[in-house]
Amino acid sequence: MLDFFFQPNGVAVIGATNDNRKGGFHIVRNALEGYKGKLYPVNPKYSEILELPCYPDVESIPENFDMAVYFIPAKFLPDTIRACAGKGVKGIIIESAGFSEVGPEGKKIQEDSVALAREHGIRLWGPNCMGYLDGHSRNVFSFMFSNIWTTLLKPGNVSLIVQSGMLSAGFLMMMMERGGMDISKVCSIGNKCDVHETELLEYLIDDPNTGVIGCYLESIIDGRKFLELARSTDKPIIVLKAGRSNSGAKAVMSHTASLSGSADVYSGAFRQAGIVQVYDMHELMDMARGFSKTAAYRPGGKTAVMTFSGGAGIVTADLLEERGLILADLSADTMAALKELFPPWMEPAHPVDLWPAVEQNGVSAVYIAAAAAIMRDPAVDSLLLETFAWEYGKPDYLAEIGRLKKQYNKPVAVWQIGRSPLNAMYRTASEEAGLPVFDEISRCVAFLDAVKRHFTKKKALRKCS
Amino acid sequence: MLDFFFQPNGVAVIGATNDNRKGGFHIVRNALEGYKGKLYPVNPKYSEILELPCYPDVESIPENFDMAVYFIPAKFLPDTIRACAGKGVKGIIIESAGFSEVGPEGKKIQEDSVALAREHGIRLWGPNCMGYLDGHSRNVFSFMFSNIWTTLLKPGNVSLIVQSGMLSAGFLMMMMERGGMDISKVCSIGNKCDVHETELLEYLIDDPNTGVIGCYLESIIDGRKFLELARSTDKPIIVLKAGRSNSGAKAVMSHTASLSGSADVYSGAFRQAGIVQVYDMHELMDMARGFSKTAAYRPGGKTAVMTFSGGAGIVTADLLEERGLILADLSADTMAALKELFPPWMEPAHPVDLWPAVEQNGVSAVYIAAAAAIMRDPAVDSLLLETFAWEYGKPDYLAEIGRLKKQYNKPVAVWQIGRSPLNAMYRTASEEAGLPVFDEISRCVAFLDAVKRHFTKKKALRKCS
Repeated sequence: MLDFFFQPNGVAVIGATNDNRKGGFHIVRNALEGYKGKLYPVNPKYSEILELPCYPDVESIPENFDMAVYFIPAKFLPDTIRACAGKGVKGIIIESAGFSEVGPEGKKIQEDSVALAREHGIRLWGPNCMGYLDGHSRNVFSFMFSNIWTTLLKPGNVSLIVQSGMLSAGFLMMMMERGGMDISKVCSIGNKCDVHETELLEYLIDDPNTGVIGCYLESIIDGRKFLELARSTDKPIIVLKAGRSNSGAKAVMSHTASLSGSADVYSGAFRQAGIVQVYDMHELMDMARGFSKTAAYRPGGKTAVMTFSGGAGIVTADLLEERGLILADLSADTMAALKELFPPWMEPAHPVDLWPAVEQNGVSAVYIAAAAAIMRDPAVDSLLLETFAWEYGKPDYLAEIGRLKKQYNKPVAVWQIGRSPLNAMYRTASEEAGLPVFDEISRCVAFLDAVKRHFTKKKALRKCS
Repeated sequence: MLDFFFQPNGVAVIGATNDNRKGGFHIVRNALEGYKGKLYPVNPKYSEILELPCYPDVESIPENFDMAVYFIPAKFLPDTIRACAGKGVKGIIIESAGFSEVGPEGKKIQEDSVALAREHGIRLWGPNCMGYLDGHSRNVFSFMFSNIWTTLLKPGNVSLIVQSGMLSAGFLMMMMERGGMDISKVCSIGNKCDVHETELLEYLIDDPNTGVIGCYLESIIDGRKFLELARSTDKPIIVLKAGRSNSGAKAVMSHTASLSGSADVYSGAFRQAGIVQVYDMHELMDMARGFSKTAAYRPGGKTAVMTFSGGAGIVTADLLEERGLILADLSADTMAALKELFPPWMEPAHPVDLWPAVEQNGVSAVYIAAAAAIMRDPAVDSLLLETFAWEYGKPDYLAEIGRLKKQYNKPVAVWQIGRSPLNAMYRTASEEAGLPVFDEISRCVAFLDAVKRHFTKKKALRKCS
């Protein structure tokens, strides 16, 4: 039902410009890079923008079209809606600010516009937002100044609904650059005067390209339906709910003019609906990236730990236990297989500190043999793996561990350390093998905990229904 | 009293080799790169190692010397101690493994060796460790395979006491590469059969080069004295105590053969002694790096927040409040100064989302003017700053914010985002300006919280004494 936004037949850019210091230039440029349909820049000052004919106003566009992107001052919106109605427009993405988030005057324009658009059957997206990016169609309707997305944006199963431009622009690009963040749709919703997170959630749950949905939300409109939708789907849903505190809630008012609601009520409701709640920016992206590679799972929280250093194993054991996860009790067969990799004077233990074995037999041989023994062990539900990007080995073993992950259907989290540029090479090798990489041990543990809770909850909800 | 380890007059390397796949080669190579005194490789198989004369045994070394580094199998240690005694040796750093961490046999060798060394007045460091690095003398007595430290190791005020080789080698190098991690001494203590963390803590508290002490410890020998020392000093002490859980404590046994003690007892005692407790690897390093740039502070927890995006400000406000920190109530003067930077239609709020002002006036002018107004505001105790490494600005404003930090003596934490290579450039600019950089907002908040607690505690302890 929102297809006219995601697969529009013709798009006007109202506020297009040739001035590359302005967002109106970048909306056209970004659209030109990916969108396959017809683009109509609109600005009375130009006859051409980026080699496209530019129209003085919406009325002058010679054909009907589905969608408009709006990037001129707020006060012109009502007239623009009327003009768009005459061109058969179904949806307008309003990327300008200056609406309800700036005070009563802007609020009135916003409310009047919603009423007017409703009369004409036009849906409004935004205002005060950055539109969306689609990794499959490569439609990017955003005033994002950088076109680095043309190399970084890869089609994948992660969709995001964000009430923050940064998370759909600069921060998202940083995540994409690190790798493993392959995208279905990233929707920046701003003040969400009409199209809102619950409607988008429903759309994305039905979207065959979307496997995981991450949300940064300052408020939730129609919370009851949002929770029902979350409960109804097997797709993992991760939510960073901002404005939980008094000062945060106050700040939400001036950011997207939303009422943020009670922190406790949200947390309890999220848990019951099987939503993974997170509290910080990287955490949101880490979880989304992790779940995107962990589609199915046998619930249970018994984790095996393979490290390159004794200290890392101990810190992992502490963090697992403190979260209520269990260090797996490796079977005698597994311990015997590990023993063969170790020098005679050293008994393997769990967490498995592989360093003495690596010294003896090399990284790749040891990691592959140890992972094979551990992943086939029925006492193991998941694996936390430390990898160290160093000169005296190759990341060739990661593909094999990725294969074992798929074979046994057990989630894996990788704690990756090392210096650049090797570190990036290892990270890429892991992500390409389907192994999500995290910067802190605690983040690996939090991810495995979320995976356990998500799939346990989904199993329980399936039994109830 | 441990000076013979840190400023040794002559060092023998027992187990030196020409085989660069072995640690005994790298100990000599690392020592040669920095140590100014005489080096005596010892190995009956070679007459020369790295152009140094090599001796068949300790007895053949023609002079007395202060220190030996031991890297041959455990069983030869007692004889080596006797030989060293004949050469006036004061301390031996034992880097080999195979002692109490591998079982009763190794344990007996270790205990016998300690008794024997005591008879001869020789101190033992290790075993099962990686020696130490000194950023000022550039003494590096470690079998670390990489010599990247020759470019990364910079003299500074951070000292570390770590019961994990990784934290004094691969992981440390990664931290140094990121910048801002300037080192006094990094001591890897292993099984700590004789020299232990409490003795080193005392030494480092007296060390004029050391300003901050970070510890990764699996156990604490002489805990009472450790806490007394922590209470007595103004130097921030950060401790990652591993082996808090049952499974972690079990793993400690097989890593460094230590008894780890009760988690609750440690946490309470740490808090009372003004120790900052951390729970993960990066967290330990982040806190050490942050405190190294935050030497003095006016206690109080009222934090100002400047961001590039509304969402970041709201998440920050939530995390501050959830930690018991207070979002500063900016004065009318400060708000008026901010108003001048903003477009007329936008009222500044706090957290200050600078994006509308940046669009109007550019990043540098806005960040400098906003930081000046905020840092001089008496209602502000500290600043949390988001910086975004992008193409449309320069990191030139960071030096000025560093100057304001020093002028007003108020701590600053930077949340840095952006793509490489710009991100690294901004990070360096911040660290060089004395502004510690963190990857997550929550880490910035945790740091400012630790700073507040540390200096509040130190003030209270000074009043008591």
